[in-house]
Amino acid sequence: MNPQWICKRCGFSDELSRYYWRCPRCGAPLDLSYEVKWSPRGTGVSRYSSMLPIDPGYLLGEGNTPLISRDINGHRIYFKLEYLNPSGSFKDRGTSLSLYLAKKLGYKIVVEDTSGNTGISVATYASALGLRAKIYMPRTAPRGKKAVVEMLGAEVIETGSRHEASIRVLEAINQPSVFYVAHTWSPLYTSGAETIAYEVYEQGFRKGTVVIPIGSGGLFLGIVRGFTNLVELGLLDDMPQIIGVQGYSVHPVYRELYGRSHKGSSNLADGIMVPNPPRLTEIVSLIKKYKWGIVLVGNNEITNALKNLYRMGFIVEPTSAAALAGFYKALRQGLVTGENILIPLTGSGLKTIGTIIQLSLNNC
Amino acid sequence: MNPQWICKRCGFSDELSRYYWRCPRCGAPLDLSYEVKWSPRGTGVSRYSSMLPIDPGYLLGEGNTPLISRDINGHRIYFKLEYLNPSGSFKDRGTSLSLYLAKKLGYKIVVEDTSGNTGISVATYASALGLRAKIYMPRTAPRGKKAVVEMLGAEVIETGSRHEASIRVLEAINQPSVFYVAHTWSPLYTSGAETIAYEVYEQGFRKGTVVIPIGSGGLFLGIVRGFTNLVELGLLDDMPQIIGVQGYSVHPVYRELYGRSHKGSSNLADGIMVPNPPRLTEIVSLIKKYKWGIVLVGNNEITNALKNLYRMGFIVEPTSAAALAGFYKALRQGLVTGENILIPLTGSGLKTIGTIIQLSLNNC
Repeated sequence: MNPQWICKRCGFSDELSRYYWRCPRCGAPLDLSYEVKWSPRGTGVSRYSSMLPIDPGYLLGEGNTPLISRDINGHRIYFKLEYLNPSGSFKDRGTSLSLYLAKKLGYKIVVEDTSGNTGISVATYASALGLRAKIYMPRTAPRGKKAVVEMLGAEVIETGSRHEASIRVLEAINQPSVFYVAHTWSPLYTSGAETIAYEVYEQGFRKGTVVIPIGSGGLFLGIVRGFTNLVELGLLDDMPQIIGVQGYSVHPVYRELYGRSHKGSSNLADGIMVPNPPRLTEIVSLIKKYKWGIVLVGNNEITNALKNLYRMGFIVEPTSAAALAGFYKALRQGLVTGENILIPLTGSGLKTIGTIIQLSLNNC
Repeated sequence: MNPQWICKRCGFSDELSRYYWRCPRCGAPLDLSYEVKWSPRGTGVSRYSSMLPIDPGYLLGEGNTPLISRDINGHRIYFKLEYLNPSGSFKDRGTSLSLYLAKKLGYKIVVEDTSGNTGISVATYASALGLRAKIYMPRTAPRGKKAVVEMLGAEVIETGSRHEASIRVLEAINQPSVFYVAHTWSPLYTSGAETIAYEVYEQGFRKGTVVIPIGSGGLFLGIVRGFTNLVELGLLDDMPQIIGVQGYSVHPVYRELYGRSHKGSSNLADGIMVPNPPRLTEIVSLIKKYKWGIVLVGNNEITNALKNLYRMGFIVEPTSAAALAGFYKALRQGLVTGENILIPLTGSGLKTIGTIIQLSLNNC
């Protein structure tokens, strides 16, 4: 059966030959339904095309990232170096699928609202595929990130705020030739993140605890669905334990799950500051079902973890450090059940040199 | 036989259990002599340990970079994405070997003089291996690069000029505990670059033309030696054609080879501005032996090629663009004999966001 869009809320469904960024009937996030088969071949994200809704081919070297282990506090930590993806973040896995679909369906223009890594990722794959990209970014986004997006040939449309960016992008998609990437909604981004589970499985990570920063939850859901598929196909006996990490400033999953909130700042990890994740309900119900947990971290913990990561040779952005900070915290709280720990390092520190200069000036 | 240091000029030799950054008798660059065997196993640089003087293991994910092909002007271009190495440049291949040797021989401190990528690379691997690093950098080196080096735990020692850095570093190595990386002299850096040839061979590049930017010549010599080994082991029938690229500002190989010089500026490609490559004689004699060639490029050509690379989705630094600019020029000059063209993209553009901002302000 060809892949189908399906809405788990209202039952809507359609072929993948039409594109929807959310359910056209009830507005919920859509999923994609298709048969999976374990038959890895080739390299990168496309190696797992038999597990994916579409096969983007090997576009720019996305996926196939290193898995590097270190011993910390008696645990074996497996760092998955997602920051070595082509545009410097794990987003490239989903972007390769999303923009390949845009190309295949004949769209000429892709649009996205973002303040960060997704903008660079979308601009990168738009270039590779010969699509025009328009990126709606708040005026406050770093000048350097905008410059990279523009060098990649994309148009940057500056807005007064992140919120205004998401409103302006909805005006733009009234034209039928325009493809809205909508990475926080798109099941293609969760499909992309699934391939992280497939890669670490082949790289030898078979059981333990996975610590995942949660912003929109695409990374979390992708890795969970990936491991779920591996269990259902009989390749793994059990699901790993999963620990989600959110920040003091913004933590909708934690609040929904535990019914309480926390004060403090975590704005260094701007990549996980997403107040309204479209798939919040699904994330919370998975954590409840498996009795997993969420920990919260603040700027001091993130700075400390970031420093430790650099001292191991990992050049990552502060958001990536939230995962290691979360691991330390979960350890102190006695939550960690696995001996082997998987920590994805999500984004490159070379994109955040401004922040790094600040931290190094502060004698971090 | 264990690997031996050998001096091709004066005949000096010694075991690899002692370290020399150049010949202690006559001051010439040293080489390493050892038996090679084709027996790839594992991943990354360490996959080719049977072809290398030492096996660093898989330290940080160095090597195993994507090979991505595009059609340009009727040629099939294979771009080797060296900018996706752990610290963002091909230097990581050599650094992994060099600093692993330092560690193995019991050194505690590594020092290097550099204005750029090698500093970040050395600081990265020093962190990974638990070595102290001191990087001598001219005061004019970009603030961002210094900040990354410091975040990695290395000490930055600022000097008045690049020349002063190379003098100061020689004072530092009077202590026996100090290991001088000396990447422009070290045969470990050419060994590291050999693995590019081994990887592209396994990735399917078997014949054609390779276009290589030449600064100190480590990349050039490494790729040439790698292909030479593949021919000698009977894995390839013939050597590829090699075209070297230097800049208008600084081009010692071109001058030595053709007996003439050129005016103009190429300071955007600062990574290839090396006035006195230690292995100049060997580079020139190889080019003569095989009837290869050198082309020169200037800032306009580099800017144009850089723009084209970004429009294909490759986020590289300007020095990387010199290679594509060199290919265009060699094509116009009728020098290119291969149908398949290999172009290494040497360094990440995310490290040079300052330059990119400038170029995008100039409406590049």
